Amino acid sequence: MNDEKMQKIIALAIEKAEDAFRKGEIPIAAVIFHLETGEVIAAAANDNGKKSVATNHAEMLAIAAASEKVGNRYLSKYGIFVTLEPCPMCAAAISFAKIPLLLFGAEDEKGGGVVHGARIYETQKNLFIPKVTGGIEKEKCAALLKKFFKNMREAKNANA
Amino acid sequence: MNDEKMQKIIALAIEKAEDAFRKGEIPIAAVIFHLETGEVIAAAANDNGKKSVATNHAEMLAIAAASEKVGNRYLSKYGIFVTLEPCPMCAAAISFAKIPLLLFGAEDEKGGGVVHGARIYETQKNLFIPKVTGGIEKEKCAALLKKFFKNMREAKNANA
Repeated sequence: MNDEKMQKIIALAIEKAEDAFRKGEIPIAAVIFHLETGEVIAAAANDNGKKSVATNHAEMLAIAAASEKVGNRYLSKYGIFVTLEPCPMCAAAISFAKIPLLLFGAEDEKGGGVVHGARIYETQKNLFIPKVTGGIEKEKCAALLKKFFKNMREAKNANA
Repeated sequence: MNDEKMQKIIALAIEKAEDAFRKGEIPIAAVIFHLETGEVIAAAANDNGKKSVATNHAEMLAIAAASEKVGNRYLSKYGIFVTLEPCPMCAAAISFAKIPLLLFGAEDEKGGGVVHGARIYETQKNLFIPKVTGGIEKEKCAALLKKFFKNMREAKNANA
């Protein structure tokens, strides 16, 4: 896969995160793509509103959509790009789906479970461990999140 | 909630795990119940076949069903009983749904993420932490799992 294809995958994830932002969702998105061809088989953003399900993180929705599309619980030929470091739930899910490559944008000091917190790929012995690279387009990925939480705080203060 | 109601919840979980066993699924089940009345709002077993989704653990399916039923991502009035110690994915999911009570049967030395492995309620700082009690009817819960894996090994040896 060439760099141009990778750039398209990242741009799609950021576009999905922007969609989520406009809907009032936390702007995090995930894209699952074929490791050789770069073909995108699933893309999803957080869908985590109050009446939704708390586990509807971008990665979970993308994995479910990809497995349904491929007709297999294992996604061994695919990689996943996420705009933010996955939480422990999503990091374990990526492992259960045997996705061999995890790329992410911004690090998540509070909620991340890959290079922060539970660091589950290091601490959970029985997991399939993907190759991990973080920090990809991290400024762009983080900017949207910062804007979202700034808006939330301002709205809270305006109502206080 | 009285002990008789708790026994019914455990019996339902074991029944669901037995159903899964008969279908060739790993026999693990979860039941979500009202903390005061004991009313069951969701019960599910692993649904993790090859053409399924790798994240379809009993707890994930029960949480999704319960949130859809209650119409709320937060399940603050409910407890969850699982026949086996949750993995890190499911332990985090229980936290995200703000379920305040986690009861489980057998411990899972290899795959568990609560009192084994990543121990995410201790290592992940930003999580809502449920009250946890393990070892409930652990022999009964473990017996089904042992039988399942024994059968799998025997089938594998027969084909070898």
